[in-house]
Amino acid sequence: MAGSSFGSVFRIATWGESHGGGLGVVVDGCPAGMSLCEDDIQIFLDRRKPGQSEFTTARKEGDKARILSGVFEGKTEGTPIAIVVENTDQRSKDYSNIAKLYRPGHADYTFDEKYGFRDYRGGGRSSGRETIGRVAAGAVAAKFLKGLGINATAYAKAIGPYTVPDEKVDIRYAAENPLCLADPETYEKASVYARELAAAGNSAGGIIECVIDGMRPGIGEPVFDKLDAELAKAIMSIGAVKGFEIGDGFKAASSTGLENNDPFRMVDGNIVKSSNHSGGILGGISDGSQIIFRAAVKPTPSISSPQLTVDKDRQETDITIHGRHDPLVVPRAVVVVEAMAALTVTDLLMRNMTARYDKIKNFYI
Amino acid sequence: MAGSSFGSVFRIATWGESHGGGLGVVVDGCPAGMSLCEDDIQIFLDRRKPGQSEFTTARKEGDKARILSGVFEGKTEGTPIAIVVENTDQRSKDYSNIAKLYRPGHADYTFDEKYGFRDYRGGGRSSGRETIGRVAAGAVAAKFLKGLGINATAYAKAIGPYTVPDEKVDIRYAAENPLCLADPETYEKASVYARELAAAGNSAGGIIECVIDGMRPGIGEPVFDKLDAELAKAIMSIGAVKGFEIGDGFKAASSTGLENNDPFRMVDGNIVKSSNHSGGILGGISDGSQIIFRAAVKPTPSISSPQLTVDKDRQETDITIHGRHDPLVVPRAVVVVEAMAALTVTDLLMRNMTARYDKIKNFYI
Amino acid sequence: MAGSSFGSVFRIATWGESHGGGLGVVVDGCPAGMSLCEDDIQIFLDRRKPGQSEFTTARKEGDKARILSGVFEGKTEGTPIAIVVENTDQRSKDYSNIAKLYRPGHADYTFDEKYGFRDYRGGGRSSGRETIGRVAAGAVAAKFLKGLGINATAYAKAIGPYTVPDEKVDIRYAAENPLCLADPETYEKASVYARELAAAGNSAGGIIECVIDGMRPGIGEPVFDKLDAELAKAIMSIGAVKGFEIGDGFKAASSTGLENNDPFRMVDGNIVKSSNHSGGILGGISDGSQIIFRAAVKPTPSISSPQLTVDKDRQETDITIHGRHDPLVVPRAVVVVEAMAALTVTDLLMRNMTARYDKIKNFYI
Amino acid sequence: MAGSSFGSVFRIATWGESHGGGLGVVVDGCPAGMSLCEDDIQIFLDRRKPGQSEFTTARKEGDKARILSGVFEGKTEGTPIAIVVENTDQRSKDYSNIAKLYRPGHADYTFDEKYGFRDYRGGGRSSGRETIGRVAAGAVAAKFLKGLGINATAYAKAIGPYTVPDEKVDIRYAAENPLCLADPETYEKASVYARELAAAGNSAGGIIECVIDGMRPGIGEPVFDKLDAELAKAIMSIGAVKGFEIGDGFKAASSTGLENNDPFRMVDGNIVKSSNHSGGILGGISDGSQIIFRAAVKPTPSISSPQLTVDKDRQETDITIHGRHDPLVVPRAVVVVEAMAALTVTDLLMRNMTARYDKIKNFYI
Repeated sequence: MAGSSFGSVFRIATWGESHGGGLGVVVDGCPAGMSLCEDDIQIFLDRRKPGQSEFTTARKEGDKARILSGVFEGKTEGTPIAIVVENTDQRSKDYSNIAKLYRPGHADYTFDEKYGFRDYRGGGRSSGRETIGRVAAGAVAAKFLKGLGINATAYAKAIGPYTVPDEKVDIRYAAENPLCLADPETYEKASVYARELAAAGNSAGGIIECVIDGMRPGIGEPVFDKLDAELAKAIMSIGAVKGFEIGDGFKAASSTGLENNDPFRMVDGNIVKSSNHSGGILGGISDGSQIIFRAAVKPTPSISSPQLTVDKDRQETDITIHGRHDPLVVPRAVVVVEAMAALTVTDLLMRNMTARYDKIKNFYI
Repeated sequence: MAGSSFGSVFRIATWGESHGGGLGVVVDGCPAGMSLCEDDIQIFLDRRKPGQSEFTTARKEGDKARILSGVFEGKTEGTPIAIVVENTDQRSKDYSNIAKLYRPGHADYTFDEKYGFRDYRGGGRSSGRETIGRVAAGAVAAKFLKGLGINATAYAKAIGPYTVPDEKVDIRYAAENPLCLADPETYEKASVYARELAAAGNSAGGIIECVIDGMRPGIGEPVFDKLDAELAKAIMSIGAVKGFEIGDGFKAASSTGLENNDPFRMVDGNIVKSSNHSGGILGGISDGSQIIFRAAVKPTPSISSPQLTVDKDRQETDITIHGRHDPLVVPRAVVVVEAMAALTVTDLLMRNMTARYDKIKNFYI
Repeated sequence: MAGSSFGSVFRIATWGESHGGGLGVVVDGCPAGMSLCEDDIQIFLDRRKPGQSEFTTARKEGDKARILSGVFEGKTEGTPIAIVVENTDQRSKDYSNIAKLYRPGHADYTFDEKYGFRDYRGGGRSSGRETIGRVAAGAVAAKFLKGLGINATAYAKAIGPYTVPDEKVDIRYAAENPLCLADPETYEKASVYARELAAAGNSAGGIIECVIDGMRPGIGEPVFDKLDAELAKAIMSIGAVKGFEIGDGFKAASSTGLENNDPFRMVDGNIVKSSNHSGGILGGISDGSQIIFRAAVKPTPSISSPQLTVDKDRQETDITIHGRHDPLVVPRAVVVVEAMAALTVTDLLMRNMTARYDKIKNFYI
Repeated sequence: MAGSSFGSVFRIATWGESHGGGLGVVVDGCPAGMSLCEDDIQIFLDRRKPGQSEFTTARKEGDKARILSGVFEGKTEGTPIAIVVENTDQRSKDYSNIAKLYRPGHADYTFDEKYGFRDYRGGGRSSGRETIGRVAAGAVAAKFLKGLGINATAYAKAIGPYTVPDEKVDIRYAAENPLCLADPETYEKASVYARELAAAGNSAGGIIECVIDGMRPGIGEPVFDKLDAELAKAIMSIGAVKGFEIGDGFKAASSTGLENNDPFRMVDGNIVKSSNHSGGILGGISDGSQIIFRAAVKPTPSISSPQLTVDKDRQETDITIHGRHDPLVVPRAVVVVEAMAALTVTDLLMRNMTARYDKIKNFYI
């Protein structure tokens, strides 16, 4: 139960350290007969690549995805899809000075406590590069969902203290600026803020929002494996995420039942809610509205300012982290959020297929 | 994959509808040789009982737990522990008027979409009574943890807009007032607020905070099954919860790396953090500090004010919910949060036992 | 991972000791809308009841099944189905003399080694009564399969050295004689044999054969979760089973490719095999032929003849087992084999629903 | 739940088709701090290589294993171990003539029924090459077990009708002859037999026996996940295996309780059984004796003699299979049986670590 697997019917197993031979993922449970090629994966991977703006590390990661199994003549075979990205730009020497030090805000100390030792080169398994497997698998899930008319889109809702007002969210704009912020005005302020922090050897956090369109009602399991519970786990499992909320989230705590309940209405013969405080989920099951959730991302812990810490020999010392690091993890985490959302929804859509006996009989008879 | 199971090594399966024959849980994976009796369970169940104050429903639920298996001569046997609570106070008639209506904020509509029909009596499986199985199993997990010196304690941090300031949290006081609020001053205001809302046929939400003391470092799996990710799923799977955050949570999003990183220091020969913005978890693995997280609870959807809705025949109508309902779900949810926290930590403690080869060899040789 | 769960999509968790409060099962994953009542369960349970002939123990076990959840107005709800059988005929005193002794052929010693102690009353969790949960759940699975035209039927193929020749198998006769043997001539010899062994304080084994009719091709997963591999696990998990084979089984080892390969032919527009050495499975996936497998059942270990053994204090001694025991476990195990077969096939049928993308799209669009 | 994963705590996911980019495995759950290098894997892989004698296909498969993750400075890190073997000798043209034909005894037809189409080149996922992932992971498990003094050894017990008598089993000899037969006399006859069948365009089956030494008592879970049940699934999931038995297996069915029960005795202060009809497992839990089981392997279905069959367009036809095939699968399957045994035992050893509360407390306190 070492936990590098995610999902139950659409199940992935990721692997890889930042400075080992490579990283990748095995997708077990993708149905047969779906079109898939390496470009489908690469488009997603390119979105998490560093070095694309002043706000992310200047490291160059080639990150070319190869599909080694599970696809034949352009279609998935129903067998496991193995995707491999070999590590190329590995400058191990950059990290030699911190091999024994516990970087504050990082998993160095906890890895040592758990495993007795760790791969100190670039964070090893706890590096941001770990998300390569998630994103590659998420690309497969996104392709799956697209065929069903379902789409997950994430963007930055806030950078540091600068938040996009709900009514100004412009998803198209988010795709065009290096911070992935969903509003030009907020972008102006946030980019100055981020630049100043970076120059001062400091870093910033932010909030990522994600919407899922095209969901039919009925998806999610009613008790432990609620759609929102599974999304929470999926998103909170991303490195720097410290909070998750669905719909009105924490704001709902100070609301009242009369305000927070979404009335049902009939529109064009369909049952719809006239508001969406619930964020598209009731009782853990999708209600047919847009699903909307947010993730709180902490500031990058790798900063060049000196910090107090201890080393493996239990000596107090200080640490200055050199090397190439993102002053902001939010822009590169946006596609990771989308990937995890797609993986979660795909799995629960498949799980839902056995919910009704009449539908199973239709399927087989 | 119907999702009424939770945990992987310490695994529970809950069952039961609010108006069926009963509710219960099977705990599979509790180790042999642990003292356990029905009182251990009952103490927890009694804390989630309704009818204990003006702020919770006047329904009387006997909720007597019986242990039917897995315990022999006062000790667990290592075999599944089946705990059953029979339903006694079932007034099905109260619900007959809403059999066809979709209550706003409830899972009526989504259950119908998923399963084709539903048990309309008192919410069936989506009733708050579903938590009986969680709490009974959580009592077993809490007993397990206690033997290791680990303890989870939850309390209300906020009711509606009234929030207990961090520096005023008084856990002992929380155990003594009917709102489980951790501060007498906040209690005064919040109780007036809750009383007024209830009188107006409305309801309130709030925030539950939970601390876990006694954790050793190294617990949690580093990728998908991070301790905070598993806690997030556990807590978000509780009926009315809409948000989850660990440590500084959403506040971390507007912080900076310098502020948010917790420095490591040596104290009495131990590695400790001089602050705890992380909430006791780094890279998904416990760091030895206190674990602290919060859950946002939405206002009870069952309110007596009239609301707009539709029925199963797709006719627009309105609905007035009679019957006995909590104007506030927070006080009764506190023990559910504790239970889910205990279940999560127990499972991850067990999973961690295979992390190191030298320790496995010590175990067997 | 304590292992009292079986299945992945159609998942059961059994519980209970022979002399605890009761035994039962939670079925999680049964689809909504299937007719189900307590009689469906009872019919199966009655077939495993003791005291029905001279060949099984004279113990009287009432074994009345109650459904406590998951069924509403005669139909399954899609929520967990909890089935409970309370223990009534418990004469603990019968077992007091063997509390410290390790019965040869039983799990007394291995339980003590694993758990540090054990419920010595009647075998506890390793008692034959453990199968009550399996059979109750198997009855639900059999109902599920019946609606799809699939049926599993088991019978005794051999008792001790007396084997029913393949060409003489008479399933109807098997349902009518106390040994469940599928041939009257073999029954005559076997019943004399069994009677003599019982009189001599000894016991007999046998072979159970099971056929599954109505399978469509395509069921089973191609690598680890092959239909025959899952059946093997299911059947080998039954207490006294020491061997499993599918189709020609061990005979295939001494056959040749030319003899053993089943030619494909067209019959009435359908692809059929003109022989069935494979037993209805190719590459782990059903091929549309009848599935046929066999289980080897060891002789009942509880015999009244004196035997050499040791006790918990590591003293050599001898043991004479009194009490009421089956001289033959085969007749009562027949329904357990059917139950396990039904559970396995149901689970794999459900799992197969996500094998093709076009069918998933048809399902949802 | 596509089924390319095996194990629960020590969990592997295999992938790869015979003519895709490669094959491999991800091992998730190997503890940290164990020595491991590519040679450990290669030694196992080399034993399943073809082209090593007249009795196996003349195909040359390079099959060089690369470890891409999970090992740092010669030790496992506790993170997933990805092992990749690239496909090199791929002559797709050999298979073009059978792209539409259903080979008798193969999974061509069942794959088409399940997935709608299949990779017809060399069997795709149902090829014998699928075992590469199993064997590579099995090498890791064998290394794990070796450190605990546990060893699994398999050999051919029979080829066609020629069986090694129990008292003549010579494990050392089995490692030296191309049929892996455990007795020189049986080898003489069996090699003539196999040679004649191959010359006649036919093929042979056989029986593989496996012994596991060094097991301590207490391993295995008592109900569904019995050690013998898990071994049965593991072994029956290997391509050509049609039967499994533990200890006396099918012979136990015609034995009596008095003969079959193994008496317990004290030897040198240890509890031992004076015979081992049980095969080292009682009630699904290891009893400290040698574990011994057998697998029945069917004759290779790929034979060059002409056979009747049908094609994808449902036309009757005949088929002659050219290309390079093993006239005997047994010799190459021996290491696969060892690998699956090692994987099963490793997983259950890990699962057993949470069986007792006192041992968990010792571990943590």
